[in-house]
This record gives sequence, structure tokens and C-alpha cells, in this order.
Amino acid sequence: MKIYGLEDIKRVLPQIDLTPIIKEGFMAYSSGLSVVPPVGELLFEDPPGDVHIKYGYIQNDDYYVIKIASGFYGNHELNIPSSQGGMMILFDQKTGKEVGILIDQCYLTNVRTAIAGAICAELFAPNNLNCIGVIGTGVQARMQISYLSNLTNCKKIKVWGRGGKSVEKYIEEMSLLGWNIEKAQTTDEIAATCDLIITATPSKEPLLKSRNLKKGTHINAIGSDSPEKNEIDHQIFKMTDLIVADSISQCLERGEISHGIKGGSIEQKNIKELGSLIESKSDHRCQSNQITFADLTGVAVQDIQIAKAVFNACKRLEV
Amino acid sequence: MKIYGLEDIKRVLPQIDLTPIIKEGFMAYSSGLSVVPPVGELLFEDPPGDVHIKYGYIQNDDYYVIKIASGFYGNHELNIPSSQGGMMILFDQKTGKEVGILIDQCYLTNVRTAIAGAICAELFAPNNLNCIGVIGTGVQARMQISYLSNLTNCKKIKVWGRGGKSVEKYIEEMSLLGWNIEKAQTTDEIAATCDLIITATPSKEPLLKSRNLKKGTHINAIGSDSPEKNEIDHQIFKMTDLIVADSISQCLERGEISHGIKGGSIEQKNIKELGSLIESKSDHRCQSNQITFADLTGVAVQDIQIAKAVFNACKRLEV
Repeated sequence: MKIYGLEDIKRVLPQIDLTPIIKEGFMAYSSGLSVVPPVGELLFEDPPGDVHIKYGYIQNDDYYVIKIASGFYGNHELNIPSSQGGMMILFDQKTGKEVGILIDQCYLTNVRTAIAGAICAELFAPNNLNCIGVIGTGVQARMQISYLSNLTNCKKIKVWGRGGKSVEKYIEEMSLLGWNIEKAQTTDEIAATCDLIITATPSKEPLLKSRNLKKGTHINAIGSDSPEKNEIDHQIFKMTDLIVADSISQCLERGEISHGIKGGSIEQKNIKELGSLIESKSDHRCQSNQITFADLTGVAVQDIQIAKAVFNACKRLEV
Repeated sequence: MKIYGLEDIKRVLPQIDLTPIIKEGFMAYSSGLSVVPPVGELLFEDPPGDVHIKYGYIQNDDYYVIKIASGFYGNHELNIPSSQGGMMILFDQKTGKEVGILIDQCYLTNVRTAIAGAICAELFAPNNLNCIGVIGTGVQARMQISYLSNLTNCKKIKVWGRGGKSVEKYIEEMSLLGWNIEKAQTTDEIAATCDLIITATPSKEPLLKSRNLKKGTHINAIGSDSPEKNEIDHQIFKMTDLIVADSISQCLERGEISHGIKGGSIEQKNIKELGSLIESKSDHRCQSNQITFADLTGVAVQDIQIAKAVFNACKRLEV
């Protein structure tokens, strides 16, 4: 068995074009070619934390993959990242034998999440963005933006965060990377001025409200991966022309869509699944009179696809 | 992070008295001191296989543990064990950081399962055993017997298995270990002559029937850990004086008890939980006019307890 750490992983990542690989995963999922059981979840109260176990396989593939990733929200007090405990494990699909471990410390989960956001931005966000709104100042708030670089010429960002210091730090760091970035006083300011909005917090109370939200906006909701997490006021769904789930079955249990269903502002029949929309190749782009929404709770096919690609690249590099 | 393989694990195991450690785990579980979500399960059709992910933690303990173990039932055609792909992973309960991996290739799962069987034999089997019946000829059919050595003077075994060759091999190997062992022609012969019966197969059809089953017998059902597996004819439960589950909630979903509930031969209120019976210290031993039954589906607390003990012993050995 081969075990690779974060250094190996970061060394091979630039060599792999992950976007088509992750797209293939979503398509396999929506075509019923994958086996993905419900997410395993382990919760902690003090300090608060959640562990997600995502696992499954694409039929007639080489491996099955079990991915572990966690968020421990007291870690910032210890000056360590909230998401640091994690790995992706590959097993032989014919014999069950373990084949490899990528001790990625949640890094690949962050990467595949950012790529899913970029895929949705590519498919759904308006063509000419004026301003990108970011709610949250953590790792995903950074990575979602980084993975947009190749998709848009828009360099203008408004960011909102709960903590003043973390917003300042975010602005400082992202400015150095060439973004023209401003602090939003409220999430309403983001709703009123941005045409691509990314929410990337572990909030349990809605942050983005329907008031002030303008037409011609696409929203990527990234933060909510547990049933209790909720960043979007579900009233927004009443104004939304296209609601996309990375996994319909999973979004009925967790993510923003689950709150919309409970609140009566979404009907299940109106939810589209990302893999089917990638497959259909129609134009689903948000028009000036529309609002579109993508709920990205994170599906095991993303983990399966990134784990295989990175593991094979690590093996090649060794030879 | 520390990673230990099967050699390290086998080296430290003789130094650890695991029985009280596993008992503590069952007691913590039944007292509500542990957090153990439902078992994660991944199924394969061709070749047939199942992967179980068991995970959780004991509150205010150092670690949480995720255990992966698999059975791939076409492996015997490749001359490799059905259960070989597996590991136990320890994480820090306060920060989520990975602490260690025991790449045990399912060995520790086999050990903790055998210990649970021995604990039930100690608590429930009649005092003076005349003959131990074994249904199955695989790894657990061997290990369950090995772990009984210290508990009983009885050396007489009857074994039944589906394959003639595997029965011969079992008899040959176990005889060398000092057991006086005979082949049973039918499972009915085992029912009629044994007072401790161990079932340890992945059967999906009941093997042990109620006809011929004599009073004064304790049954340890080991093989059924998935909803579709079933070794015991549920009519047996109508004759049973004590029905014990390693986890009541888990046995309602999987294991023999789930079939008994579905078949109407068990009422949930009559199921006792192993940890509570260990705690109560009353005498639950099978009497000459009784039949007792233990359903051992395998609970994450066993994995948590054995992983911690073995990991800490491996670390000590290194120093």
C-alpha cells in the first residue's frame, strides 16, 4: 500500500486538470453509474465539531474510496485550521484490499469543493460579472475565488464576515493576489450589488436574505453540509428560476435545499441535479431577469474522482 | 501521525488484556456515554462484497475512531482471505487532527469480535459445557474457539460447513491446537448435541433451525452484520429465555434480531443489551431448562476500545 502526504499531493496537483474529472464524477452520479450511500456524520459539542465520512464507487472502476474530513470550530483559538483532520483512502473494488491513503488533511476536500463552485459558476453565473460577493472569510472563501480566476475577467469582490479581524486579513491576502476587494457592511449590501454570490460559512442562521437580492444573480451555497447548517434565507427560493443540487437525495437531507423544502419554498420536482445539467449541455446561464442557485453539499463522487486522479499521479511521480 | 501495520499490531497484542477493555466499551455504550452513529455500509454485487464503516467516540475520551472492514466473498477463488481490506483510524477528539492509523487488514475486527463472543460465553453459556457447536469454517469459526480456551475445560467441538474441503481443513488445523473435533453431518446434529453454539458464516438463509434445539443451550450469533445476512431461523426466538443484543438499536436494523422482529417472534421490549448485563453483575447464565441467545453485530465501541489500547501499546513499544 502507498501512503502519500500533503507535500506529495500539492506537488502533483498542478499536473492534473481536475475540472473535467470532477465533471465526469457528477455525470456518473446523476446517470446512476455510481454507488454513494448517505453521508456518515459524527458530531461533537464541546468544542463544536463535525466529521463527515463520504464514500462510494463508480461501477466497473478500479477503486472504491472512503473520505474523512472534519471541521472543529474551536481550532481557531489554538491558531490551527478548523479543517485539518482528514484523509482519502482507496481500496480495490474487486478484493476490498486497501491500495493507498492520501493524508490530505482536508486539502483535497477543499480543492474539490472549490472546483464544484467553479463548475457551477461556469455553467450558471452571468456572462459578464460586475462584482463577486463572498460571505465568509475562511479557507473556502479564499479557494472559491482562486478557482474563479480562469473563468472571469471580473476582479471586483465584496466580502462580508462576522469577525472584523478575519475580514481585514482576508482583504489583505486576496488583494495581494490581484483582487480588487472591498468590505461589505452587511450581507444585504452584497445582495444588492453582486451578480455572483458565494456563501462559505458554517452558519446555523441564514445570512443571505431575499430583501435587496437583485435579478441576474447566481448564488453558490458552499457552507452548508450538515442538516443544522443554514446560510440562505429560504424565502430566496421563491424568487429563484433555477435550483441546482449537487445531489438531489443528499440535498433533501442536508444543505440549503433541505431548509427550503421544510419551509415550503421549494418543491422537490423543481430541483435539477448538477450532473444532468452538465450532461445536457444546454445553456442554463443566469439571465438578467433571473436568479439561479446551486447547493453544493459535497458528494462522494467528487472525492472518488479527485482521490483516484491524485493517487495515480503520485504513483507516476514515484516511478 | 503514527502508522502501524499488522506486524506491529500482532507484536503488542499479547501484552494487552483486552477483555476488560472491551467490556468497558460495551458498558459505556449501554450507559449512553458513547456517541455511535448508524453503521456505514457499501455493497458490491460482482464479486459480492460488503464494507462496513463503524465510528464514534466515548465522551471525554482522547480519541474518536473510524474503523473500516470488508468482506469480499470471491476472494477465496484468488486464495486470499475474504476480509483483508481494513484499518482503524484515530483522531484527536478536541481538534479533529488525525493521530494514528492501524493498518490491521481486518485483524483487530476479528479479534474484538472473538472477544465479544468470549464475553457472552462467559456470561451466558452453561457452566459445564459438553460440546461446542460451530457453524462455519472461516476465520471467525477459528477465532471464536481460540478465545474460549481460557473459559472452559471442554475441548469437544462439532463443526458444520457448506464446503467439504473447508471442513476437513478446519478439523485438521483445530485438532493441532488440541481440540477434539468432529464433523457434523447437519446443523440439526449440532442443535441436538451442543450446549454452546457459535454461528459464524455470511449466510443469507437460516442455517440453525429450531427443531432438535435442546434446552440448556446458549447461542452466539456472529456472522450476521448486514441486514440481508441471516444464520438463525427466527422460530428459535420463540423458545429463547434471554435475548441479548450487543446494541439494541443496531440489532433492530441488522443481525438476527432484526429478522426475529420482522418475523414477529421477538418483541423489542424483551431484548436486553450486553453492556447493561455486564454492568448489572447478576447471573444470566443459561440454565438446564433455558435457551439463551446473543446477537453480535459488532459495535463501534469495540473498535474504539481495541484501537486505543493497541495504538497506545504500539507507541509505548517504540519508546
